[in-house]
Amino acid sequence: MKLITVGSVAFDAIETPFGKTNKIVGGAGTFISLASSFYVKQQGIVSVVGDDFPSETIDLMNSRGIDTKGLQIKVGEKSFFWSGKYHNDMNSRDTLVTELNVLEHFDPIVPDSYQGCEYLMLGNLSPQVQRTVIERLNIRPKLIAMDTMNFWMDIALDELKKTIALVDVLIINDEEARQLSGVYSLVKAAKIIRNMGPKYLIIKKGEHGALLFHHEEIFFAPALPLEEVFDPTGAGDTFAGGFMGYLAASNDSSFENMKRAIIAGSALASFCVEKFGTQKLTEISSESLNNRISEFEKLTSFQTK
Amino acid sequence: MKLITVGSVAFDAIETPFGKTNKIVGGAGTFISLASSFYVKQQGIVSVVGDDFPSETIDLMNSRGIDTKGLQIKVGEKSFFWSGKYHNDMNSRDTLVTELNVLEHFDPIVPDSYQGCEYLMLGNLSPQVQRTVIERLNIRPKLIAMDTMNFWMDIALDELKKTIALVDVLIINDEEARQLSGVYSLVKAAKIIRNMGPKYLIIKKGEHGALLFHHEEIFFAPALPLEEVFDPTGAGDTFAGGFMGYLAASNDSSFENMKRAIIAGSALASFCVEKFGTQKLTEISSESLNNRISEFEKLTSFQTK
Repeated sequence: MKLITVGSVAFDAIETPFGKTNKIVGGAGTFISLASSFYVKQQGIVSVVGDDFPSETIDLMNSRGIDTKGLQIKVGEKSFFWSGKYHNDMNSRDTLVTELNVLEHFDPIVPDSYQGCEYLMLGNLSPQVQRTVIERLNIRPKLIAMDTMNFWMDIALDELKKTIALVDVLIINDEEARQLSGVYSLVKAAKIIRNMGPKYLIIKKGEHGALLFHHEEIFFAPALPLEEVFDPTGAGDTFAGGFMGYLAASNDSSFENMKRAIIAGSALASFCVEKFGTQKLTEISSESLNNRISEFEKLTSFQTK
Repeated sequence: MKLITVGSVAFDAIETPFGKTNKIVGGAGTFISLASSFYVKQQGIVSVVGDDFPSETIDLMNSRGIDTKGLQIKVGEKSFFWSGKYHNDMNSRDTLVTELNVLEHFDPIVPDSYQGCEYLMLGNLSPQVQRTVIERLNIRPKLIAMDTMNFWMDIALDELKKTIALVDVLIINDEEARQLSGVYSLVKAAKIIRNMGPKYLIIKKGEHGALLFHHEEIFFAPALPLEEVFDPTGAGDTFAGGFMGYLAASNDSSFENMKRAIIAGSALASFCVEKFGTQKLTEISSESLNNRISEFEKLTSFQTK
């Protein structure tokens, strides 16, 4: 198996200045695996849902080459649920409801058929659960990437640092990088965080793009300037999924290939925000994805004289 | 004459988390003309100072090919003075003192030898003064660029719009673009602002780079990720000066050349913030400028497969 994703498969209810949804399908694991499926044709997911989760979504995942043997379905229990409301600038949001439900005692099971996977993407989850998955793999994957958030820095920093020490690529946003490092300058923060273990650090800056740090090298990927961001939910997960999917499919984790992978992730994220939840991700053709990637190339390229 | 810059030549007193200055030389016109002098070897400045202004600075300008016949020296009057204090994140600042002094009744004089200039850079000043300079040129320059700020949007919006309608390139920051257009999305804001007259709009986003809009095309220039921003004063003016200096020296105002000009401006701005005031601008060699420009190229370039 090329790639395993660990992350929540869940329900979201979202309110933005443009509208409001009831419970719709969301979760880091869902966005990541759907995004990576544009590149990786065979992958697995490790997660848990309740028996309230729609079988149609599981069928959709399967149809896109996402093996769901690692997706536990807990009978008589409810799926993780998050509800949030975005402010007018779409850059900040309030959490209205968080119901952990099946995630509260999530014990990640790695099916035998997932053993030997080459790429592992740890979506945002408790750092202890993320580490358990690493421990349950018989052979260390070629590349482990990890997403996390300030919540875990607030309540489980020591646990978080133990897991960060085990991964190759850490993917966090600018505020999280500042909190984790304790410094404001992202260049300084990157040095401090790479000393915690990860050889690569990706700092997501939302509408301002993303930075990839490795040794003394920095790559900057812009975000596509958009007329409208309809719903930012899942954009970061989609970015991570596109990134890991691209790396796994090309089986090349060089710095040069990581640049291309970041552009692929950025392109998918720019689609994700156009509609509520995962909807847009199910509608993109490979042609429109490639066109979007060309737009990214054009955006920053200039001819030196 | 290739280029004329209009803008304040003045004193600043600056406080940052790294230190504090007494009165040092500053002003939009100073930063712009020093920055453009890296490219344009013959240019003029239109401005006004009091007799308190150091002749050493005027000598320095002259030695860099900046003709100061348009710089009026008002005997018995004092130069414009601004004092400000930056917050810890260096992205926001408080104005402590503004003494207009000679700027209060500034009547811009365009010397005869400046007539026929091809490029005109209007640094941030009252929109009425900016317009007066355009009116006092016998022949309209090939390209007019203009900087302004929210202050003029607050107190003289109609005047400002009259001047904006006359220029080719407007250079403002993201907040100002939002205020001027009344919309949040920068892509939408750019359409609205370009409908006010300018064929080109540059939106500066500080540490997040800059966007150039023209018809349906967008170019994005990153800012160089820096370990430390020592003093951001004048960075925007330096950017504008590098941009216009590059355009004027290459005598090519195509969209493709504007991209290179923005990178030149960004590179000079990345130097400017390394020391207080204009100091760093007087220390850069052309070799280190070219090396910095190469860093910008490397930062966003990636090979497509």
